[in-house]
Amino acid sequence: MSVVTLRQRAAQELDPAARALLGLSRTNLTLLLLIIAAVVIAIIETEPLVFIGHETLFSHLQIGFGLLFGAEYLARIWVAAESPGAGSNWHKRWTFIRSPSAIIDLVVVVASLLPLITANTAALRLLRLVRIVGLARLGRLSTAVHGIWQAIHSRRFELAVTAGLATILIVFGATALYWLEGDVQPDKFGSVPRALWWAVVTMTTIGYGDAFPITQGGKIAATLVAISGIGLIAMPTGILASAFSEAMQKHHDD
Amino acid sequence: MSVVTLRQRAAQELDPAARALLGLSRTNLTLLLLIIAAVVIAIIETEPLVFIGHETLFSHLQIGFGLLFGAEYLARIWVAAESPGAGSNWHKRWTFIRSPSAIIDLVVVVASLLPLITANTAALRLLRLVRIVGLARLGRLSTAVHGIWQAIHSRRFELAVTAGLATILIVFGATALYWLEGDVQPDKFGSVPRALWWAVVTMTTIGYGDAFPITQGGKIAATLVAISGIGLIAMPTGILASAFSEAMQKHHDD
Amino acid sequence: MSVVTLRQRAAQELDPAARALLGLSRTNLTLLLLIIAAVVIAIIETEPLVFIGHETLFSHLQIGFGLLFGAEYLARIWVAAESPGAGSNWHKRWTFIRSPSAIIDLVVVVASLLPLITANTAALRLLRLVRIVGLARLGRLSTAVHGIWQAIHSRRFELAVTAGLATILIVFGATALYWLEGDVQPDKFGSVPRALWWAVVTMTTIGYGDAFPITQGGKIAATLVAISGIGLIAMPTGILASAFSEAMQKHHDD
Amino acid sequence: MSVVTLRQRAAQELDPAARALLGLSRTNLTLLLLIIAAVVIAIIETEPLVFIGHETLFSHLQIGFGLLFGAEYLARIWVAAESPGAGSNWHKRWTFIRSPSAIIDLVVVVASLLPLITANTAALRLLRLVRIVGLARLGRLSTAVHGIWQAIHSRRFELAVTAGLATILIVFGATALYWLEGDVQPDKFGSVPRALWWAVVTMTTIGYGDAFPITQGGKIAATLVAISGIGLIAMPTGILASAFSEAMQKHHDD
Repeated sequence: MSVVTLRQRAAQELDPAARALLGLSRTNLTLLLLIIAAVVIAIIETEPLVFIGHETLFSHLQIGFGLLFGAEYLARIWVAAESPGAGSNWHKRWTFIRSPSAIIDLVVVVASLLPLITANTAALRLLRLVRIVGLARLGRLSTAVHGIWQAIHSRRFELAVTAGLATILIVFGATALYWLEGDVQPDKFGSVPRALWWAVVTMTTIGYGDAFPITQGGKIAATLVAISGIGLIAMPTGILASAFSEAMQKHHDD
Repeated sequence: MSVVTLRQRAAQELDPAARALLGLSRTNLTLLLLIIAAVVIAIIETEPLVFIGHETLFSHLQIGFGLLFGAEYLARIWVAAESPGAGSNWHKRWTFIRSPSAIIDLVVVVASLLPLITANTAALRLLRLVRIVGLARLGRLSTAVHGIWQAIHSRRFELAVTAGLATILIVFGATALYWLEGDVQPDKFGSVPRALWWAVVTMTTIGYGDAFPITQGGKIAATLVAISGIGLIAMPTGILASAFSEAMQKHHDD
Repeated sequence: MSVVTLRQRAAQELDPAARALLGLSRTNLTLLLLIIAAVVIAIIETEPLVFIGHETLFSHLQIGFGLLFGAEYLARIWVAAESPGAGSNWHKRWTFIRSPSAIIDLVVVVASLLPLITANTAALRLLRLVRIVGLARLGRLSTAVHGIWQAIHSRRFELAVTAGLATILIVFGATALYWLEGDVQPDKFGSVPRALWWAVVTMTTIGYGDAFPITQGGKIAATLVAISGIGLIAMPTGILASAFSEAMQKHHDD
Repeated sequence: MSVVTLRQRAAQELDPAARALLGLSRTNLTLLLLIIAAVVIAIIETEPLVFIGHETLFSHLQIGFGLLFGAEYLARIWVAAESPGAGSNWHKRWTFIRSPSAIIDLVVVVASLLPLITANTAALRLLRLVRIVGLARLGRLSTAVHGIWQAIHSRRFELAVTAGLATILIVFGATALYWLEGDVQPDKFGSVPRALWWAVVTMTTIGYGDAFPITQGGKIAATLVAISGIGLIAMPTGILASAFSEAMQKHHDD
């Protein structure tokens, strides 16, 4: 019978593919909650009404998360020796250190610990954003994300064609409204780049109401543009959704 | 030939599964209309222009509905003895009384009759909300609702992944706009929590127009965020819709 | 060889099922264009900037259309004798005269010719609306419409359940916002009926921007309501779309 | 072994179908980037903040693109002799010159070079729009576009029926709001043509917020119109999306 070393056990605990579907290992579940907690705290920090008066508390919390994620980073380097394939332990570890996900890990750890050695306000603000973007690390915990990227890749041609058609229609719509409303509302339609904002807000059906046609001709053009544009914008969405469904189905069958 | 007792007949009349599909029993149809009527009256009561001057009328109506639903509640306890399975009549009744739907029934009855013994305005206002939420009792009248919950449960993994991705994108969008527009519109984008409201309103394509980017960079970031976000938000919708369709299909075949 | 009488030929020309798909008979194509022209003129009449100063012209146009549609109505009564089934010619004609579509025809004819005998402004305004609603007569020219109604009927259970769930969610959303924002924005959320308008505008993702939450709690509740509501509102749409597709497919195969 | 002449090689390089899918020939990829660059520059030109002070630069860039596209146009005429079918070289070239895509090419070339011989501001502004619309030339570079048009053509009946139903509903919605809100908000609902803008903005769920009902009746009618309208507007979108998917599938299989 095989003897499971501590490093093998740790590798299993840290590997997202080790357990099926939502059944995350206990370690991964803890990491998931830690990442979410760290991001929620970084988000709350940006709110001056909460942050001012509690700078020390937030600083301590942040350094605590930085140390935890630093320990996780070192543990991942350690267990990288267990990854399959030939090569010495240190070669495998070096391969892991150069991988994109490991670099993101390191960036988040550094961003969390830098406040220990700097007090520059602008730098601290940027570091806070880096810590929020660390939310992307959640992607590593689920093997589903890999399947989704593969599915998107398999539909890259359809997505490129529909995205291209949608872009052409947005440009045409903006050009039409620039021509029809440019003299009436110069601040909103006085150039094609200005009118592009209207075209995007309209064709995605967001419709903030900061820019809309006020002339007869502009309204008729906007009607045609909106109706044809909505269909085109909805197409990439539909293609992505069906690619995602297939990826999920495959994932279940595996 | 089997003799059908009054209690058996009553149990059949009150059981939503007793008759197929839309063919509700006469009792259930009456209950459906009574529940809708009680909720409509509770809704109208919240409108001061109608309520003030008719307090007594509304109070009488409400107590009338409370007595009717109280009678229904007692009848359901009585016929619970007819539910299949072993155990004494009172054991079955106690099982029914502890079920979530029976507790909701009791809460609605109590909320309707409490005004008889209290005149506290704040309490009355809260009780009115409880009576409106009693609309959820309609769910019990249709066996379709059970199938829908099962279908949602069977897709919980897909829903969790897409909801997770959508949440991540909403946070990223809010962070980007906080960074680009935070100094220009501090009341709307001055912190990530404030920018989150913009991100939700934009990615759902609601677009109230209370918050939108006004700088070049903010508009470009919003365009990217909106287009990618719309697809992600639409995915859980698509998954739910197909799960619902399947549940309906199964329901028809049974 | 069968001799085709004038009435048989006229019946064929007026019957929408006589020719396949978009290949309308010459008479039906003419009627289609006449109905559209009559409605467009009735629409333009409502615009004071165009109508004032051209009352006589519009009056003459309207009476002209009234006479044409009157002739069509009489012709349809005449050829009703050719409809299949037993019974005397006059019995078949009387059956036609009592049919809903024939009654709509008569109403439009009367609404177009009444200005000859009345000059009451309020009456004329209402008659103009009747003439616009006459656009519904286009439905008779296409056999596709019948198939659509059948398809909707076959999905009536799914549509009823999803519509019911959507209504319940709209009521819950309105109740939540009434509770959270009622005191802050009494004119918009001061009662559940007032908050219902916000709930409808939000869950359909229209988002005019005339009512939206401004408190923390209101925004969080609105986020939950919006995200769950959008999926529910999209469901009847998806069900209708797939029912329509099936109806079209069947129509093609026939 | 066949000797490939220079003209044959050039014909292959310029033919979008010569290489599969996204694998554009080097010449076509260069043309794609040139067309996009020319359109981006024409778009930027319309922005006075950028254009004023750099008129000469933009004029030189534009003439440069005009000369490049002129050379492309002449090359396409030259290689048209290699197109399959009977007829003399000059007959084939004349067939190409009269084709719609060749006419668009010529128009863009002329629009780019005309500033050499005219300085009329209004003419220059119109020419700039023509150059932006030249973006449509991208369509020629992809064989996918042809498949899309075929797919749309095969669903023309479904699209005509749904578009017709949607138009009827928009007219009915506008008529209802004109009737209910015409006297209260005459500038927005004072005539059916004015109310049509509201109906389009609502049923597409854009909801700018420039026009919305303020009376009880208007809000109830708007709710009914919005909910039924959204489904109808979504139908042509769904039909187009599935037609597009099929066209893409066919394209892959070929």
